[in-house]
Amino acid sequence: MHRSKLDLPTPALLVDLERLESNIRKLQTAVSAAGKHLRPHAKAHKCVEIARLQVAAGAAGVCVATMPEMELMAAAGFHVLLTTPVASTAKTDRVAALARSGARLRVVVDHRDQAALYQDSAARAGVTLDVLVDLDVGDHRTGIPCDERAVELARSVDSSRTLKFVGLQAYSVSASHTEGWEARRNHSRRAMAQATAVQRALLACGLDASTLTGGSTGTWDIDSEIPEMTELQAGSYALMDVAYGRIGGVPFAPAMTVLATVISINHSDRVTVDAGFKAFSTDRPFGPEPVQVAGVRWEWAGDEHGVLHLENPSRRLALGDRIEFVPPHCDPTVNLYDRIYAIRGDEVIAEWPLKYPSLVGRP
Amino acid sequence: MHRSKLDLPTPALLVDLERLESNIRKLQTAVSAAGKHLRPHAKAHKCVEIARLQVAAGAAGVCVATMPEMELMAAAGFHVLLTTPVASTAKTDRVAALARSGARLRVVVDHRDQAALYQDSAARAGVTLDVLVDLDVGDHRTGIPCDERAVELARSVDSSRTLKFVGLQAYSVSASHTEGWEARRNHSRRAMAQATAVQRALLACGLDASTLTGGSTGTWDIDSEIPEMTELQAGSYALMDVAYGRIGGVPFAPAMTVLATVISINHSDRVTVDAGFKAFSTDRPFGPEPVQVAGVRWEWAGDEHGVLHLENPSRRLALGDRIEFVPPHCDPTVNLYDRIYAIRGDEVIAEWPLKYPSLVGRP
Repeated sequence: MHRSKLDLPTPALLVDLERLESNIRKLQTAVSAAGKHLRPHAKAHKCVEIARLQVAAGAAGVCVATMPEMELMAAAGFHVLLTTPVASTAKTDRVAALARSGARLRVVVDHRDQAALYQDSAARAGVTLDVLVDLDVGDHRTGIPCDERAVELARSVDSSRTLKFVGLQAYSVSASHTEGWEARRNHSRRAMAQATAVQRALLACGLDASTLTGGSTGTWDIDSEIPEMTELQAGSYALMDVAYGRIGGVPFAPAMTVLATVISINHSDRVTVDAGFKAFSTDRPFGPEPVQVAGVRWEWAGDEHGVLHLENPSRRLALGDRIEFVPPHCDPTVNLYDRIYAIRGDEVIAEWPLKYPSLVGRP
Repeated sequence: MHRSKLDLPTPALLVDLERLESNIRKLQTAVSAAGKHLRPHAKAHKCVEIARLQVAAGAAGVCVATMPEMELMAAAGFHVLLTTPVASTAKTDRVAALARSGARLRVVVDHRDQAALYQDSAARAGVTLDVLVDLDVGDHRTGIPCDERAVELARSVDSSRTLKFVGLQAYSVSASHTEGWEARRNHSRRAMAQATAVQRALLACGLDASTLTGGSTGTWDIDSEIPEMTELQAGSYALMDVAYGRIGGVPFAPAMTVLATVISINHSDRVTVDAGFKAFSTDRPFGPEPVQVAGVRWEWAGDEHGVLHLENPSRRLALGDRIEFVPPHCDPTVNLYDRIYAIRGDEVIAEWPLKYPSLVGRP
């Protein structure tokens, strides 16, 4: 039975399958042609079904940022890299338990105390964990500085009986969102040069530092030119958002939208829709962008409301009308929903669960 | 067995029961003493257990802003007011189905087409729906202007065989967050004077407009002074946040915090915690405020990261340390979680589900 997207209760998160598949194919083809692995960041979509499409297209596995994401993606059978350091025994125990259950995993550390936690958990569980050293390439967010401290940490991991040093992670937050392709290339090259210097030092010591993973939707083509880079972590490319659309030179189509309904029309110069702070992430300096209606200006109007100022609207908006919006930032917008509707044309093809491993076919 | 909050996986949402109970008691006592009903807004917490405490303390029921919230709170047996107009047959059908199942409900309309949708759904379900007219008291977000149009809409509702006109809703978004108590009182009085004028006009027509519901955590004491006001909708007072703490004259204690862990310590002037855009709402111009550590400055550092600049820290922060933060804005922060841990002292007393009716004791 045909179910139209226009019949969905709003606000609803939608993904256009044709655009999603095109984005996945386009990046995979380019990254494979450059001789790199693609390991898409699943923190962007938190969706096993989207990860399946990425792996079916040729991805080496997925990245995740949190333990629940790791458990979700490992349960689905993917090779998973946890890109964020953790700092509690409870979490390193969960990683070791996953490894013991047969999951294929990699983790990162940026401090020897984290390595000690992983080592103890691995020893208790009777497993060996694959560990990368996370490098700080200029953001000072996570990562060990790119100097002798990184070499020492890699040596320390390598000397552990229950940890296996498998390479380096270098992610530049600031490069990923630098505006303009040339400026972004310069920024990313400076950042990654620090990582490749550490890599050379480690290889000179005889450590297996051939894996260098990093990169983003903003820098995939830039980082693909770096010979030492072996793996790209782009995530947003699959769904896209206003932010990546604005920085220039990012050739992916907005595949994810939020469907909202016009719920109040008492003024000639504005209408109100049922989507606000709880329907779109608000961490960017701009709001969502309406699709298929031009000449309107979005304004935040609270938790459940947005106002569209009708400056020169390309069509009349009536009570009950559905409008789709491209979210400002895809990752934290996905995080607001428990499901995403997969759409082809205007037909709802599937309803995919997001985020919660406990909801995905488990008791 | 004692379970300490410090053992919880982070980021985790906590509510301090002593502070929560004190906030609930304080507002209920004051509102009851003023001869008004309190109908706390459950969109703030989306938690049946917190609503139970509010109703046990004397609340008349709860407000909700969305259909899933209405279904959640109605299933728990509360008298529920849906404060937001809806504009689709699917939603008015869900409301009518709830009413048919025995739920005690009220809804609002700000346009005759919404009344027509409710009327048709009520007729199909064989029920009568209690309807308030939602007034625009200056925000132009939802609500019908406070003039003859409001009177006409109330008459139209009153003349329907399946709708019962039961009063007025007037909520001032802008008054609720006006800085400074005096300025806030002036703003709210101007706003509410428009509503009481409509109320007088309706009573003069013989319509049952004695119910006037509205008000917020910012204006509860201000609106309690208005004789015509019968019901207060404050929501944030129970949990509180940085925003309501900053506007002055709001006497409730921050009861909700986000627990985070220090996960990276490679720099002498900063540490990184595992809480970012996905752990706190970002719709306010300021970030979360750390509890029990002073002399640090918060900086957003991405979806899963926050950086604490150690300007003059009151204690040393080590890898693995837990830090609690008061969120900038409670409602959209709650919306990021699927559970809240109820804490007394440092003990975890309960784990309360949030948001999802399908997870609350249903198959």
